Amino acid sequence: MDLNEIKQPSDIKNLSIDELKQLSEEIRNFLIEQLSITGGHLGPNLGVVELTLALHQIFDSPKDKLIWDVGHQSYVHKMLTGRTEQFSTLRQYKGLCGFPKMNESEHDIWETGHSSTSLSAAMGMAIARDVRNEDHSVVPIIGDGALTGGMALEALNHIGSEKKNVIVILNDNEMSIAPNVGALHNILGRLRSGQKYNWVKDELEWVLKKIPAVGGRLATVAERVKDSMKYLVVPGMFFEELGFTYYGPVDGHDYEDLFNSINYAKKTEGPILVHVITKKGKGYHPAESDKVGTWHGVGPYKIESGESLKKASNGPGWSKVVSDTLIKVAEKDQDVVAITPAMTVGSKLEDFKKKFPDRLFDVGIAEQHATTLAGGVATQGLKPFLSIYSTFLQRGFDQVVHDVSRQNLNVAFGIDRAGLVGADGETHQGVFDISFLRDLPNMTIMMPKDANECQDMVYTALEHQNGPIAVRFPRGNASEAPEERELKTLPIGKWEVLKEGSDAVILTFGTMIDLSLEAAEVLEKQDVSVKVVNARFIKPLDEDLLRELSNQNMPMLTVEEHALKGGFGSSVLEFFEEENKPFPYIQRMGIPDRFIEHGSVGDLLNEIGLTTDGIANKIKDMVPTKEKRA
Amino acid sequence: MDLNEIKQPSDIKNLSIDELKQLSEEIRNFLIEQLSITGGHLGPNLGVVELTLALHQIFDSPKDKLIWDVGHQSYVHKMLTGRTEQFSTLRQYKGLCGFPKMNESEHDIWETGHSSTSLSAAMGMAIARDVRNEDHSVVPIIGDGALTGGMALEALNHIGSEKKNVIVILNDNEMSIAPNVGALHNILGRLRSGQKYNWVKDELEWVLKKIPAVGGRLATVAERVKDSMKYLVVPGMFFEELGFTYYGPVDGHDYEDLFNSINYAKKTEGPILVHVITKKGKGYHPAESDKVGTWHGVGPYKIESGESLKKASNGPGWSKVVSDTLIKVAEKDQDVVAITPAMTVGSKLEDFKKKFPDRLFDVGIAEQHATTLAGGVATQGLKPFLSIYSTFLQRGFDQVVHDVSRQNLNVAFGIDRAGLVGADGETHQGVFDISFLRDLPNMTIMMPKDANECQDMVYTALEHQNGPIAVRFPRGNASEAPEERELKTLPIGKWEVLKEGSDAVILTFGTMIDLSLEAAEVLEKQDVSVKVVNARFIKPLDEDLLRELSNQNMPMLTVEEHALKGGFGSSVLEFFEEENKPFPYIQRMGIPDRFIEHGSVGDLLNEIGLTTDGIANKIKDMVPTKEKRA
Repeated sequence: MDLNEIKQPSDIKNLSIDELKQLSEEIRNFLIEQLSITGGHLGPNLGVVELTLALHQIFDSPKDKLIWDVGHQSYVHKMLTGRTEQFSTLRQYKGLCGFPKMNESEHDIWETGHSSTSLSAAMGMAIARDVRNEDHSVVPIIGDGALTGGMALEALNHIGSEKKNVIVILNDNEMSIAPNVGALHNILGRLRSGQKYNWVKDELEWVLKKIPAVGGRLATVAERVKDSMKYLVVPGMFFEELGFTYYGPVDGHDYEDLFNSINYAKKTEGPILVHVITKKGKGYHPAESDKVGTWHGVGPYKIESGESLKKASNGPGWSKVVSDTLIKVAEKDQDVVAITPAMTVGSKLEDFKKKFPDRLFDVGIAEQHATTLAGGVATQGLKPFLSIYSTFLQRGFDQVVHDVSRQNLNVAFGIDRAGLVGADGETHQGVFDISFLRDLPNMTIMMPKDANECQDMVYTALEHQNGPIAVRFPRGNASEAPEERELKTLPIGKWEVLKEGSDAVILTFGTMIDLSLEAAEVLEKQDVSVKVVNARFIKPLDEDLLRELSNQNMPMLTVEEHALKGGFGSSVLEFFEEENKPFPYIQRMGIPDRFIEHGSVGDLLNEIGLTTDGIANKIKDMVPTKEKRA
Repeated sequence: MDLNEIKQPSDIKNLSIDELKQLSEEIRNFLIEQLSITGGHLGPNLGVVELTLALHQIFDSPKDKLIWDVGHQSYVHKMLTGRTEQFSTLRQYKGLCGFPKMNESEHDIWETGHSSTSLSAAMGMAIARDVRNEDHSVVPIIGDGALTGGMALEALNHIGSEKKNVIVILNDNEMSIAPNVGALHNILGRLRSGQKYNWVKDELEWVLKKIPAVGGRLATVAERVKDSMKYLVVPGMFFEELGFTYYGPVDGHDYEDLFNSINYAKKTEGPILVHVITKKGKGYHPAESDKVGTWHGVGPYKIESGESLKKASNGPGWSKVVSDTLIKVAEKDQDVVAITPAMTVGSKLEDFKKKFPDRLFDVGIAEQHATTLAGGVATQGLKPFLSIYSTFLQRGFDQVVHDVSRQNLNVAFGIDRAGLVGADGETHQGVFDISFLRDLPNMTIMMPKDANECQDMVYTALEHQNGPIAVRFPRGNASEAPEERELKTLPIGKWEVLKEGSDAVILTFGTMIDLSLEAAEVLEKQDVSVKVVNARFIKPLDEDLLRELSNQNMPMLTVEEHALKGGFGSSVLEFFEEENKPFPYIQRMGIPDRFIEHGSVGDLLNEIGLTTDGIANKIKDMVPTKEKRA
């Protein structure tokens, strides 16, 4: 079958199981080949080939609602809904998105990127269906990792009690982005190894009704015995207790098993959870044998060996710089404890874990818990370092406000993937954290210009005894490795003049420093002399330096890889308003008030004008011409 | 026993059970009498008298860590730790806080206000204890309502798998702030009505070990039988599955039962959950018979009858204005659906519920789920109205970003308790929502000046078909009831000039409008003519009007009952920066960069200078004297 000819799910509706098997192989080959060039979420998608085909045969999308949790496993779904040809542009600028996207297809009815949202969305759609007396299936497909996210558990609690028809497909591959942790993981483990669920609840109820009714104390005992029998034959008691019919385990690579179970679920009244066991990376040996999560999302690779084709970069990854520094400090300081929400691999904490297994806590996908947990640790005088992506810290926002910042606890936040992240796109851009953190009292926020400063910031954060402090750092690699030297703490709120100049001043930090220095160099040749300041503390501002600069009466430009609304530039505006003197001439550059889609960071920066030329031109607009200056 | 003489928990350590019973009665009488004058969280505290006394006899605070979830039930704890005399100042300006507060006592080791944080905090403290090889108990006390909050479930998942010694006291009174909902509530209901848990797990394991081991397939069956037997005698399977020892149900008003169970828990290895059944309002008939949550938190009341002594106010409560409008719209529009996270009572949605039982969804304490649920409903073209307190919307922040605003879904947010809330204090002030919402693309934010405008804003929000839109409104009452008239939609982003003036202009909204108009009146008498603008759209700004105003060249003052950092005033600064013309003379008034404690809203506004005089003086500072003007 020509994969490009599949334009909609109806094109595969009449395929026999043998034909489906054949198609599965073709899809797998396509994905392995295609992703070896573009990169992408190979492991998750190889795992759901049969499941996706079965779902699209049984359900009638988009009338029936298929909701892909996290969404990085929606490639097969994209192929079955007419997008195979676009895979050469996967996760590239203006190309196919790596997640479901409403503007790509009517079959993408819910967009994702963050995990654990599908059950709430499904319940919302089920409510809408029932308010309107419509009749269709609502089918969230959620991984075992995503299930531990608090909002998924909140949703289970709600769905289980409202008795609406929702078919939860639990795609259990024993891993989320990394090996899973937590009690729920253990429950699923017991279920996986359990017997096939051949008794279904209504049959069981029929049998139980045969037990004669008795009165008094005996009645209670009889009830207990009934419950006990139920437990004997119904292995998914955890879910049954929550009000779901549990059906499983189901072999997610066996079409007969899939069809039987999903068809059964389709005709079941009330919420049902189908526990489908799949293998991440199925059908591609290097991915299948992955035990740590390397093949979850990948760059280009050699198909035969699985060897990565990533170009070597000059410097180490920012996450690595941070985690190495953590180890360095933790070696001398017993009080340092690291916390990660399922990102041991992403945040490069494997070495820390090896060295200090009792001081690394992977709490699973649970950002709220991770944040308050860090707060609890801090109350006891230890030094928690919460390693968390900018975009996921949004999940722990109230915990930062209410627990950490309000109690002024010494929690160090390592905010990874701050700024534009590139191929993961708009769900993952870390461009709001300054806005939502800097309005919180007691908070300190830093961003380093290079690996050396990054080390010192991590050290500063851990040594800080005056409330919460965050060091944010970008995705990708530093330009150079840090020097081997003693760590030092930075004076809080002190900026650094990187280059002197007399016509204008750029206040910037992090990733925008190199661009700003380059722009200054370009301008120098055009006889415009620009001062460049490393505003490495985003909060508090260096008020002394700001006053000094405003006395020098130069136009002032703030440049940040962050939302303009409420960002660093705004805080500079606020400062000058508070000074209650005439404003200096200030302009701000940053990310405009819209979501930024996927693409290389370079393309995205180019699109929004955060480039050497963009900065240089802006300065030229601001600086009076030489004649005027004279 | 003189209650004032109890200075620390050791003062009650040696009391006999009879003496404890006597003391319990005295404490209850004290609370009933005292709170009839000051108001406060009567119901929750009457419910935990025996539990608190038992915990303080058994554990050694502050070495052992007692962590009160939500914290509104910590009054008895406060009395046992030397604060009885301060109860006349309860929840008043500079008086005793209604929640645990570190600066009041060394026994308050964790501050709360929002629910569901205690388990994460406890786990953090347990981690710190074990890293340092210390030996003490960590005892979170959490209500059944708080248990459904996602972060509590995330914490259960973590604690249950890490096997640390944590003693969870589940204080089950069948209500949180209102009657509980959800599947977990049903589970607890089954447990409550179950037999006493006389078998404990280690005894059971001993029995089970007597079953001879067998090999092969039989081994699996034997395992299943064992599990089944466990279920027969261990009723708390839900918690056992999560890795906890379940012990209960325990009568929370019976000292012997409490001592037996908590002492057992103290010597148990690994995480244990003690299921304590208490009665909210125990010992005071009006509170005890409360079925809806009226006695959760109360103002002053007549002791004999329970009748409220609240002064009648002129206008209806803001929540009531909103919910009445919702009903009005929902009567004509089948598509309107209301969602609340456990706040049917607080948000005055009882009438809506009565009229439209199938269109009101109380999801329990689950703000993340509530937000994304609303998003799911919106994808289907219905009109969800999410009624949520400003401070609790912080919990759903990522869901607003990632699910609602990013997908540009038509969700209407009714942000209740926006601004200072008064007696509940710093954990509940709704003073960050503008900062964290206005940086999100697609978002519209409004705040009404009076009940009429509030109605129109609710209607505008429901009719809005261009993405998420929020109407924020304060705690307390409107000054007048709304007129009976047709609802109308407001033009998005259009402000309203309330008073003309020629010397200065005030841009303000919501609660600050009356103060600003009063200030203008005061100034008028001093020959300063002030224009007052109702900036009812906080996003988008009325850019045309701002341009017009800046052309008039008057000093401009923004006034808001919201954090200055990133607030409305900042967005005005940003606008003028974007105009790329010299700034007008702008000053901002609002809430400074610190947390604002409890007290009457008037006292608090006074403290931070948001008063008629404060505004008038600020304007006078900004306006040149008459001579200069001439």
